[in-house]
Amino acid sequence: MKKILILNGPNMDMVGIREPGVYGHDTLKTIETETIAYAESLGLACDAFQSNSEGALVDKIHQAFTDYDGIVLNAAAYTHYSYAIRDAIAAIHKPVVEVHMSNVHARDEFRHKSVIAPVCVGGVFGFGKLGYRMAVDALAELLKE
Amino acid sequence: MKKILILNGPNMDMVGIREPGVYGHDTLKTIETETIAYAESLGLACDAFQSNSEGALVDKIHQAFTDYDGIVLNAAAYTHYSYAIRDAIAAIHKPVVEVHMSNVHARDEFRHKSVIAPVCVGGVFGFGKLGYRMAVDALAELLKE
Amino acid sequence: MKKILILNGPNMDMVGIREPGVYGHDTLKTIETETIAYAESLGLACDAFQSNSEGALVDKIHQAFTDYDGIVLNAAAYTHYSYAIRDAIAAIHKPVVEVHMSNVHARDEFRHKSVIAPVCVGGVFGFGKLGYRMAVDALAELLKE
Amino acid sequence: MKKILILNGPNMDMVGIREPGVYGHDTLKTIETETIAYAESLGLACDAFQSNSEGALVDKIHQAFTDYDGIVLNAAAYTHYSYAIRDAIAAIHKPVVEVHMSNVHARDEFRHKSVIAPVCVGGVFGFGKLGYRMAVDALAELLKE
Amino acid sequence: MKKILILNGPNMDMVGIREPGVYGHDTLKTIETETIAYAESLGLACDAFQSNSEGALVDKIHQAFTDYDGIVLNAAAYTHYSYAIRDAIAAIHKPVVEVHMSNVHARDEFRHKSVIAPVCVGGVFGFGKLGYRMAVDALAELLKE
Amino acid sequence: MKKILILNGPNMDMVGIREPGVYGHDTLKTIETETIAYAESLGLACDAFQSNSEGALVDKIHQAFTDYDGIVLNAAAYTHYSYAIRDAIAAIHKPVVEVHMSNVHARDEFRHKSVIAPVCVGGVFGFGKLGYRMAVDALAELLKE
Amino acid sequence: MKKILILNGPNMDMVGIREPGVYGHDTLKTIETETIAYAESLGLACDAFQSNSEGALVDKIHQAFTDYDGIVLNAAAYTHYSYAIRDAIAAIHKPVVEVHMSNVHARDEFRHKSVIAPVCVGGVFGFGKLGYRMAVDALAELLKE
Amino acid sequence: MKKILILNGPNMDMVGIREPGVYGHDTLKTIETETIAYAESLGLACDAFQSNSEGALVDKIHQAFTDYDGIVLNAAAYTHYSYAIRDAIAAIHKPVVEVHMSNVHARDEFRHKSVIAPVCVGGVFGFGKLGYRMAVDALAELLKE
Amino acid sequence: MKKILILNGPNMDMVGIREPGVYGHDTLKTIETETIAYAESLGLACDAFQSNSEGALVDKIHQAFTDYDGIVLNAAAYTHYSYAIRDAIAAIHKPVVEVHMSNVHARDEFRHKSVIAPVCVGGVFGFGKLGYRMAVDALAELLKE
Amino acid sequence: MKKILILNGPNMDMVGIREPGVYGHDTLKTIETETIAYAESLGLACDAFQSNSEGALVDKIHQAFTDYDGIVLNAAAYTHYSYAIRDAIAAIHKPVVEVHMSNVHARDEFRHKSVIAPVCVGGVFGFGKLGYRMAVDALAELLKE
Amino acid sequence: MKKILILNGPNMDMVGIREPGVYGHDTLKTIETETIAYAESLGLACDAFQSNSEGALVDKIHQAFTDYDGIVLNAAAYTHYSYAIRDAIAAIHKPVVEVHMSNVHARDEFRHKSVIAPVCVGGVFGFGKLGYRMAVDALAELLKE
Amino acid sequence: MKKILILNGPNMDMVGIREPGVYGHDTLKTIETETIAYAESLGLACDAFQSNSEGALVDKIHQAFTDYDGIVLNAAAYTHYSYAIRDAIAAIHKPVVEVHMSNVHARDEFRHKSVIAPVCVGGVFGFGKLGYRMAVDALAELLKE
Repeated sequence: MKKILILNGPNMDMVGIREPGVYGHDTLKTIETETIAYAESLGLACDAFQSNSEGALVDKIHQAFTDYDGIVLNAAAYTHYSYAIRDAIAAIHKPVVEVHMSNVHARDEFRHKSVIAPVCVGGVFGFGKLGYRMAVDALAELLKE
Repeated sequence: MKKILILNGPNMDMVGIREPGVYGHDTLKTIETETIAYAESLGLACDAFQSNSEGALVDKIHQAFTDYDGIVLNAAAYTHYSYAIRDAIAAIHKPVVEVHMSNVHARDEFRHKSVIAPVCVGGVFGFGKLGYRMAVDALAELLKE
Repeated sequence: MKKILILNGPNMDMVGIREPGVYGHDTLKTIETETIAYAESLGLACDAFQSNSEGALVDKIHQAFTDYDGIVLNAAAYTHYSYAIRDAIAAIHKPVVEVHMSNVHARDEFRHKSVIAPVCVGGVFGFGKLGYRMAVDALAELLKE
Repeated sequence: MKKILILNGPNMDMVGIREPGVYGHDTLKTIETETIAYAESLGLACDAFQSNSEGALVDKIHQAFTDYDGIVLNAAAYTHYSYAIRDAIAAIHKPVVEVHMSNVHARDEFRHKSVIAPVCVGGVFGFGKLGYRMAVDALAELLKE
Repeated sequence: MKKILILNGPNMDMVGIREPGVYGHDTLKTIETETIAYAESLGLACDAFQSNSEGALVDKIHQAFTDYDGIVLNAAAYTHYSYAIRDAIAAIHKPVVEVHMSNVHARDEFRHKSVIAPVCVGGVFGFGKLGYRMAVDALAELLKE
Repeated sequence: MKKILILNGPNMDMVGIREPGVYGHDTLKTIETETIAYAESLGLACDAFQSNSEGALVDKIHQAFTDYDGIVLNAAAYTHYSYAIRDAIAAIHKPVVEVHMSNVHARDEFRHKSVIAPVCVGGVFGFGKLGYRMAVDALAELLKE
Repeated sequence: MKKILILNGPNMDMVGIREPGVYGHDTLKTIETETIAYAESLGLACDAFQSNSEGALVDKIHQAFTDYDGIVLNAAAYTHYSYAIRDAIAAIHKPVVEVHMSNVHARDEFRHKSVIAPVCVGGVFGFGKLGYRMAVDALAELLKE
Repeated sequence: MKKILILNGPNMDMVGIREPGVYGHDTLKTIETETIAYAESLGLACDAFQSNSEGALVDKIHQAFTDYDGIVLNAAAYTHYSYAIRDAIAAIHKPVVEVHMSNVHARDEFRHKSVIAPVCVGGVFGFGKLGYRMAVDALAELLKE
Repeated sequence: MKKILILNGPNMDMVGIREPGVYGHDTLKTIETETIAYAESLGLACDAFQSNSEGALVDKIHQAFTDYDGIVLNAAAYTHYSYAIRDAIAAIHKPVVEVHMSNVHARDEFRHKSVIAPVCVGGVFGFGKLGYRMAVDALAELLKE
Repeated sequence: MKKILILNGPNMDMVGIREPGVYGHDTLKTIETETIAYAESLGLACDAFQSNSEGALVDKIHQAFTDYDGIVLNAAAYTHYSYAIRDAIAAIHKPVVEVHMSNVHARDEFRHKSVIAPVCVGGVFGFGKLGYRMAVDALAELLKE
Repeated sequence: MKKILILNGPNMDMVGIREPGVYGHDTLKTIETETIAYAESLGLACDAFQSNSEGALVDKIHQAFTDYDGIVLNAAAYTHYSYAIRDAIAAIHKPVVEVHMSNVHARDEFRHKSVIAPVCVGGVFGFGKLGYRMAVDALAELLKE
Repeated sequence: MKKILILNGPNMDMVGIREPGVYGHDTLKTIETETIAYAESLGLACDAFQSNSEGALVDKIHQAFTDYDGIVLNAAAYTHYSYAIRDAIAAIHKPVVEVHMSNVHARDEFRHKSVIAPVCVGGVFGFGKLGYRMAVDALAELLKE
């Protein structure tokens, strides 16, 4: 049985609390629970982890080298400058799918650039919590191959 | 019954022929047929259209103002410079979902910038033809609301 | 009797429909009819043409080489990147007056730059449909010389 | 009765003297007199003022807060760097129409950028002294509303 | 009784030790103690926290969502690139006052840009430890409203 | 007895009138009166001056070389481009404190850069008229040394 | 027998008419006829096509996938921004030789950059109509291999 | 008898007072007196004028149109951004020689660019007050022709 | 006896595992053991530490203020954006030698810039694990002085 | 009889040796011999010269002022930064044709810019040694006029 | 007796021949002879040297370390990119005066930047051969001190 | 027996003479002698060469194609702009180690970029003459493989 990781970055623990106009009213807890359930319905084992620390996220991605077959990653603000996370993704040779709940291209200029996208398989942006389900779909498809 | 449009831009008629390493071996015909079938399975009426002409794409987007409830749009190379398509999307007030088969962020520098993303609802990139199905999913979800 | 052309570019056929906050409620039809009437009141023959296609606009500008004495041109989004339209204007050696209904300098950064302005005689921006009448005035004056 | 101000910036007092190839042979005196006459023919009271000093121009714009209903402004070289004039325009909440006698977009690179355009209603460029009359037309129309 | 947090970022624990020419001879301990005393003299409860870790600073800012009414923040080097801290500030909807002991605009180019300033209420720079007292003053004033 | 100058630049005479959403409802008169009173309460003599003219501001700063011990300076729009004011500050070898009523870093891009900050002691931004009092505090402290 | 296409882009139909100082007095008709004759003298079949429409040029390039062994392409103004034409060239895996009649590097800045050159075999610029014959030479040589 | 003007810009009245390390110990008075004497020794009439106001400098340059045969101009800080002074120089068609006492290219980056140099005949920088004498030499030579 | 620290940054714990084409097959463990042995052979005490966390690396550098005489630092991805690590190095006034196993200048553009190099003594790049030994050599030489 | 010069710049003496994937297997000797023969077959006298020294190339171009009627120039790496060679070409008023064996626009970014192209008649790139023959053709044609 | 060197760079040997509109009709020989005579009239020994080779110019500047008291340097095109000449000037600790015959700031953009100016004492531009005499004047004055 | 070349670029012949604060008091002679002795102690034959001429350095690098097994190269100022040297290194397929005596990243901005680093094996900077010994160590190690 394949196993995937739902990995969320800084401030995602405030989702459902902060800027509901941007992210909706569901908390991270709800999103993680629903996404895990959806992954299991597709026959995938699934864990979730969140941290505000760049180092902790790098550690977790390294763990995927041995423990997971793929990652759904919302690196939040680190998306735009964390070359450390980029290198971690490149190091593990596992498919990583980038997710953003908001349409990052319709927000501040600095959110238009992703330093991790070039080392991800692909990505989804702008569909709120639905994006996580779409990413799981993509990962499920990729892991079939 | 809601009705959506699968709209493909320049050179997408060469998919399955050109650069199979990047886009896979399915032709546009196959992709359109499969995507339409998938949309119908979700209870959506669905048409497909492709053109290499920027003007024809703008015309088609305008048509969506009266004839469609949403668009799945792969604007291909026009993604990176067609402010005319951007204005067309902004004009119709219908949800448009951006799709790219390849991971545009892992290719040439000029492909990293989308001038249409800011006026789309969201987007999907890097998952080959699967991306069209994911975009239909997202549109179906949005049209429920 | 002098003859001029009112030439409108992409998405101008949606005026009166799209973003009324920006462009007002008059349709292109109304604007064309009023502008033609105004031109005739100044003793000028006047035609109107709109297209979403860059190539069709270039063709029409070429036609002015033999059929018109001047052009009132709202190139819309093409204003900002169409070097093909720029070259067409430079090729015909007829006075072309640039018009924009909205104040392009108060909108998105990319709308601040006009690649066609350097080869036009002059321009008018920000006065809605009045701008077309002002441009006709200017052209009438120029054609007297 | 509405009252407007024709305001000219640095070096406009040399018009008709300097670079006749660019600005024509009419002096500022002539242009002011003709423009005032034209404004009065449209039922508008009209004054004219010129200064080479940025501060004096800012003072005059402030005066418009109480004494004028609109301004026709040719800020000349200050157009390209005077954020002080920009702030003055923004402060008075009266319509200001930007005028340039020459086609600034066909001259030096630095003349392509206007820091005051975003806070003006609209503008006219490239038609020599005719531009002032066109600007008065636009202002007259705006003051009707 | 209102409660505020004095939050210091990376290398501020070396203040009084490192580069005394730039930051003076007081240690962080002294600065925190004096600032807390000053805040209390204004009738505000006050805690102090320092960390070299971006993640720990984000965690602490989140804590302010429930535990504090405002923050005096010297993000030090993170000021210039931590979009994670910026998002944390934006998420909590509490007034944050930016402080820098040195005149950052008179030092290296990279210190001229603050990615957190746009989401802070305001800021103070260049006055050494006095800056903290000034920031507390500002926060006290803001919390009165 | 030490003597300081409160110096305000272009358009500050419109404060309380223009854009109250940005600057509040107090007029410059009120702000000057209150700031002078506050300075006197700290044992400092204090004058106030405002001008829209860059040259007049430079003249006044020169006067401080002989007549004042320090300056609280809100150079308004000149902040962003007046190298003449910068050189004047550098010439007098007296402490100058930069003040901005609004959070300039949360407004237009061009307001993010201060050409005078590198030659000031420090600065305060974003706290409305309170910023003047904070600047007087800082100057008072600096003049004790 | 090998077959090649002489493909000309926007405004090339005005050659011999527009700006003779830049392009000489031969019309496109003459150039096409002479180039075809020259190609035939080298034992190559040869067609010619011109369009002002970006989409029509892309369509024609696609046709080369099945109908031609190589293309001599003067993309004119599209050279500088048409990523759609670039992708079309990349898609067909046939040698394309870039031609410009004028020395584009000695004209406007924007003409110095070619977005299609990287996917062409090579190019020729600055020799007027002679350039077409030189390009046919190069193509003839390449098709021998 | 030819007549020239020695024109000094903002803060030059502080020379001999401010930053003696950069400009030496002579006051502007001394420099003007010595330069006038030197000019007279070459058979030139000579006046001197200094202002901190951009507008006053423009006015004075205009005066040269009728009253002087050439100008030695040290525009100081205005050198780097005053397009108004640039236009004034261009307007009068008299030779203007640019002088800087310090080596502007060895100081701040912003001092490396002169917006007035392109409309001056030539310039001298880095030789302190000697530069004025050198400029008078050059002007004397030019006025002989 | 002098004591040095071998400090490795993010993802260096994956060396020998990730991208062996770039970094070779030795693990970090091996590299640390060999480098410590080499340092001891030169008469230096030596510790090794690795972390993926920017904050932990800053903490460790601070510790060097009291516990070490110099640092061999491979900051990996943080090299390119961690101003926090830069400030930490500047704070401790101990020699730091920068090491990169790969030739960073022959890889991605973003790896060409080091924000820490200006505050290091010097550096070594491109020689794989040998670089650590070379850095120890340099540090040994520097500590003799 | 007209006489031309085949001039090759730095590292062209290594052609046929270095990077055969880029330049093919012919040595410079072969290329020179074949090109001279070809030129003679067109009735042109022809010499060849190569140097790695910028100064020697400038000297040789100067010699063309008296000894040659035109130059075929492959300036190799100097193409991208030698303004000295550019000025030499401009000085001699003889036609110079730029040649590059490889498609410089498909290689490193720095090879996309030619500082000599604006002063050459035209150029050829991407066709290996054939490019020299094509350049001789062009020069022959130009010298007929 | 002090001794100076007149040093001219690439293409200066073509002066009087190339572009007389820019440089006048005097040859380098004439300029050197006149400048030497002028220097001797001021009591300075004087040599002249010209080379098109960057290395030869560097060698000559080094020679000045022992043989000359100052240099008048017209580095021509090397002015804009030769950091080798810059370093040579910095190495010899002798005064170097930069000369340009034309007004480099009124010509191509690339001629506006001098990489050697920051290490020269000062400079003169735009006065043709007179500039050499002015530079000798300046050097004579400097060598008196 | 392997043979290496110590190659030094422009102004390195002034080392020990120029800027001793930057480069120390050893002359190039001393450095070359010591480095050769060190190389021989490692069993390598070793020559040394210095030139101020870019062309001579390119010639010498070409010579290494047949005569040397590797190069220790301090290209000095040419490091930052000599694409000719870069191409020479790329042409010979021998390991080249880049050396800089000073920490180039802590000096002028233009010294931060090396155009030759991407084609070298690796490099060493900031350790004075020790850097040559370290480079020989690296080369010795590489030549063992």
